[in-house]
Amino acid sequence: MPEPTLIHTRAVTIEWGDCDPAGIVFYPRYFAMFDASTAALFQAALGMPKIRWTKHYNMLGIPMVDTRAKFHIPSAYGDEVTIESRVTEFRRSSFDVAHRLLKGAALAVEATETRVWTARDAESGRIRASAIPAEVVAAFAR
Amino acid sequence: MPEPTLIHTRAVTIEWGDCDPAGIVFYPRYFAMFDASTAALFQAALGMPKIRWTKHYNMLGIPMVDTRAKFHIPSAYGDEVTIESRVTEFRRSSFDVAHRLLKGAALAVEATETRVWTARDAESGRIRASAIPAEVVAAFAR
Amino acid sequence: MPEPTLIHTRAVTIEWGDCDPAGIVFYPRYFAMFDASTAALFQAALGMPKIRWTKHYNMLGIPMVDTRAKFHIPSAYGDEVTIESRVTEFRRSSFDVAHRLLKGAALAVEATETRVWTARDAESGRIRASAIPAEVVAAFAR
Amino acid sequence: MPEPTLIHTRAVTIEWGDCDPAGIVFYPRYFAMFDASTAALFQAALGMPKIRWTKHYNMLGIPMVDTRAKFHIPSAYGDEVTIESRVTEFRRSSFDVAHRLLKGAALAVEATETRVWTARDAESGRIRASAIPAEVVAAFAR
Repeated sequence: MPEPTLIHTRAVTIEWGDCDPAGIVFYPRYFAMFDASTAALFQAALGMPKIRWTKHYNMLGIPMVDTRAKFHIPSAYGDEVTIESRVTEFRRSSFDVAHRLLKGAALAVEATETRVWTARDAESGRIRASAIPAEVVAAFAR
Repeated sequence: MPEPTLIHTRAVTIEWGDCDPAGIVFYPRYFAMFDASTAALFQAALGMPKIRWTKHYNMLGIPMVDTRAKFHIPSAYGDEVTIESRVTEFRRSSFDVAHRLLKGAALAVEATETRVWTARDAESGRIRASAIPAEVVAAFAR
Repeated sequence: MPEPTLIHTRAVTIEWGDCDPAGIVFYPRYFAMFDASTAALFQAALGMPKIRWTKHYNMLGIPMVDTRAKFHIPSAYGDEVTIESRVTEFRRSSFDVAHRLLKGAALAVEATETRVWTARDAESGRIRASAIPAEVVAAFAR
Repeated sequence: MPEPTLIHTRAVTIEWGDCDPAGIVFYPRYFAMFDASTAALFQAALGMPKIRWTKHYNMLGIPMVDTRAKFHIPSAYGDEVTIESRVTEFRRSSFDVAHRLLKGAALAVEATETRVWTARDAESGRIRASAIPAEVVAAFAR
């Protein structure tokens, strides 16, 4: 398979409502940010938003099966951070994503995800892992 | 129509993650609590969870069209509060819900909702407001 | 008092995680968006983020006392919407904000807020409503 | 150190607002549930809610430094699930927590956390990792 090389970067402003009584980001909110970053990465690769590429490839989504995050530096509301996201490996029907959340040049949070390309079986109607189309894999190799 | 008289009460513990850097509930979280309370009220009236009564009545849900909340007393994480919920009026395809969030005997938050009974039109497939079944209205009159 | 005239507009992308099983925005999320819009409006007026102007004016925040939203058109993930926000009235220690969420030219959601300028009393240490500084009011009249 | 043996179990109802357009729990919500479960575990061990034991031990909280979750079986709104939580290891100033989210007897989600016992340094005022009191460790050994 072609190596995924695309990196997507987006700026995020930490909002008051992202933060907890300690004044720092409530960590489940980081996972919501990373989920949106994965969606933005796929949109950048495939040239259309998630709501359209799921229809285009006749699939249901890319549910998470395993995710991990390490929190090195806290962020507070008003902070402007950057999230860099890329696919690190495509397999037959699953793939890995890595995110780096940066405060300036400092690595504040890093996360990894394993997700599955999921479709509804045409015959049984059941939800199942499905082969990732070659053109999807190719779209990340640039 | 029979008068709705059912009142549903549930206890809620305010969690760390519900609260903001001021240490009090981030107010959008109250709306999520009230949405869950309306679901609990309907479950109590109809004797089945939302995921089942939406299928039973072949409808899509009860989307919000208008909601208002007044915040009298803040709550902090660890607080145990009570939410009292009831339908105040059923109309043909819309209805009103009122919530009272209590800290002990004190009224901390009050909210009102107007929602619409929504189904997919059998012929056109379009989403539209639909008449609330008489047996649903009757289920709240007890 | 000078009339508040400043209007702040920001673009928001509706994310997968903002949406519910009906595929549309879970309405409590709109309130979080509006809270961030009010923060952005104050940042535009005062020239510094909330974390700094709360310190600059030695106050605690602008807690919500009353908010209402009307939902005219649903939004789905992938939608790009615009939120227009402005203060509609300043009073001694409270003020009103209005938000309009637009999908293209269509008004999808409208909301109003009443908030209170809140400080800690220098003597008693208690949290109380406090007079809004004239320079804050003036900053919105442009 | 005494071995932590306390297991805390709590029931959680999956709400409409916890779920995404695929109709299943939006995975960042699981982390919010686990954070509340860790708080409930500490409350069970220490006999007081988090807002009190943080004051009692003069500390700031137990921020997350590393968390991982594996998602085996999805849950939909209306599902009643159980979360079992326990400390798996205490070290000088950090500790590990494990959560198991069960649907009936089936393991649906499992998660691990590493958190740090955090206090404000009495002299410098800086936030730093602090030794976990022996009586806290002892409270989990029963």
